[in-house]
Amino acid sequence: MAEEKVLNWGICGAGKISNDFCSAMMTLSRYEREHKITAIAARSQEKAQKFADIFEAPKAYGSYKDVANDPDIEIVYIGVIHTEHVRLSMMMLEAGKHVVCEKPLAPTWQECKKVLDYAKEKKLLFLEAVWSRFFPVYDAIKDEVNSGNLGDISMVTTQFCIPIMSVERLCRKDLMGGVLLDIGIYCIQFACHVYGEMPEKIIATGSLNEEGVDEDGCVILLYSGNRKASLVYSGKTASGNNTATIMGSKGQIFIDDCFWCPKSVKLTDTTLENKIPEGPSPYNFYNSGGLRYEADHAFKLIRSGQLDSPKYGYKDVEMIHKIIDEISKQIGLKY
Amino acid sequence: MAEEKVLNWGICGAGKISNDFCSAMMTLSRYEREHKITAIAARSQEKAQKFADIFEAPKAYGSYKDVANDPDIEIVYIGVIHTEHVRLSMMMLEAGKHVVCEKPLAPTWQECKKVLDYAKEKKLLFLEAVWSRFFPVYDAIKDEVNSGNLGDISMVTTQFCIPIMSVERLCRKDLMGGVLLDIGIYCIQFACHVYGEMPEKIIATGSLNEEGVDEDGCVILLYSGNRKASLVYSGKTASGNNTATIMGSKGQIFIDDCFWCPKSVKLTDTTLENKIPEGPSPYNFYNSGGLRYEADHAFKLIRSGQLDSPKYGYKDVEMIHKIIDEISKQIGLKY
Repeated sequence: MAEEKVLNWGICGAGKISNDFCSAMMTLSRYEREHKITAIAARSQEKAQKFADIFEAPKAYGSYKDVANDPDIEIVYIGVIHTEHVRLSMMMLEAGKHVVCEKPLAPTWQECKKVLDYAKEKKLLFLEAVWSRFFPVYDAIKDEVNSGNLGDISMVTTQFCIPIMSVERLCRKDLMGGVLLDIGIYCIQFACHVYGEMPEKIIATGSLNEEGVDEDGCVILLYSGNRKASLVYSGKTASGNNTATIMGSKGQIFIDDCFWCPKSVKLTDTTLENKIPEGPSPYNFYNSGGLRYEADHAFKLIRSGQLDSPKYGYKDVEMIHKIIDEISKQIGLKY
Repeated sequence: MAEEKVLNWGICGAGKISNDFCSAMMTLSRYEREHKITAIAARSQEKAQKFADIFEAPKAYGSYKDVANDPDIEIVYIGVIHTEHVRLSMMMLEAGKHVVCEKPLAPTWQECKKVLDYAKEKKLLFLEAVWSRFFPVYDAIKDEVNSGNLGDISMVTTQFCIPIMSVERLCRKDLMGGVLLDIGIYCIQFACHVYGEMPEKIIATGSLNEEGVDEDGCVILLYSGNRKASLVYSGKTASGNNTATIMGSKGQIFIDDCFWCPKSVKLTDTTLENKIPEGPSPYNFYNSGGLRYEADHAFKLIRSGQLDSPKYGYKDVEMIHKIIDEISKQIGLKY
């Protein structure tokens, strides 16, 4: 069956997130039939080879360009530093590859749009890897929101506080550091997931470090019909109580710590557990095994010829990055 | 010993909160030696008598004035509708009684100040009954905040969402309805408990109903040194996940549902449980047994001649009501 043709992946970046993505992908029950890690590229040949050995990838490249030039590769996962996301995405699309690129694609909607427009023009899949959206429990949340079980939903809250400002990259402006693009985006995507539209008003606060990147923020999103969302994120604190709630007139949904990759979700009548298997290479980030859903989703989209994801597609990227633009403007964040 | 002389209470109001206060007070181990419910007053003699029978109070009055005139009464608990708080407080102070008055004392700081100034002038205790502050776990929270265990505290969050807009009184402007004064005040007192100073900036949102009282709100408090608090409250939703967190660079405190009268608090190294006994008359509100701490605190203050509470004193009433004033102004709430 043509739909089951193996997807040959090129992986750009041999760092922590690429490790987790590959390890998680290999836990998919249909991995052997649907996915193959064909090549790894890193900034050094040695680093790429070491990564290739772990995941039994046949090729290791010391240059990202080699991935673009490899005719065996159908899709590229981009897990490199933020500042390279747009350039590598464009390079891979130009070479005719589908792309899954880590978030944030770019610091502004305008730059994101360039990539999306080019993917559309080339008739290729482009997926910004907001991995939360591909968790099956996120579908269950959406179904519950749409079911009417909660009555009128008027309040959403999220909290994402982890000590990432201790990571050097996050403190630096030249590396697109700061928390809005790194963790705030998860709070924003959650509110967008529930309300599915642009807020009418955005009220943002955020503190900049000496270099001018933001270290924390409290944001209020005001939607039509007096609906609200309150977002809290910080890179300056120890790990917090990183839950989310959706509150309606008849009930609530509670998404347990960590809400962006939840292990359990309390719906009106039931609690969903989301158990994720260990991968062949230990994960670096919390519950990273959930990256498997992203790989699975990319396969299904491509094999069904659907190039705009219904879970996190063009309109979602636009909504989220337009909110980021407005928050950036209000807090004086500029790269 | 003079310090143990029984405190003779007059109770104004025979409603739900007065029931809970009396029932909770009677669970104090030293109740018989320290407290006596001497008289109950309600708007009707019949209602007062019914209440007096439950609590074995020797006197029942159909008028609040009778409480003021009763020479046996040393302290008055005011548990009547918000709009009567100032008038009755002034009446009781004028008659030389100490006063514990339910929150909110008044919709504006200016009106609160009148009562506090008069209490000072008369050398009587006046306690606005923000009962959270008298819970022993709130002392433990404060100690932990001051201990340095959490490192630099930069983020505080609270959430208080319950379906109180279904209560008619809360929807009406002439009865001082709305959520800011009823439940928002608990979120505010919590932030004040942690930071202990006025915020430098207040950003408030809140939706007014057709009568002009507020139904929900998201508020951001910005403190010196880039410290923040995010407050969420709503009377339009089903009961939410009403927790609070205090986040520092080294650790966090998590205050379990319901944060304003918690049954447990997670500190850095320990979890404190706050078990509260059942009272002789069933409680109407969640964990109301905690009102016992308020009565206990009033006794200790009066018998030690301390008329400004170190747990919730004049400066606290001022801070909290000045924040309420600013939020009211921003959202267009006016009684």
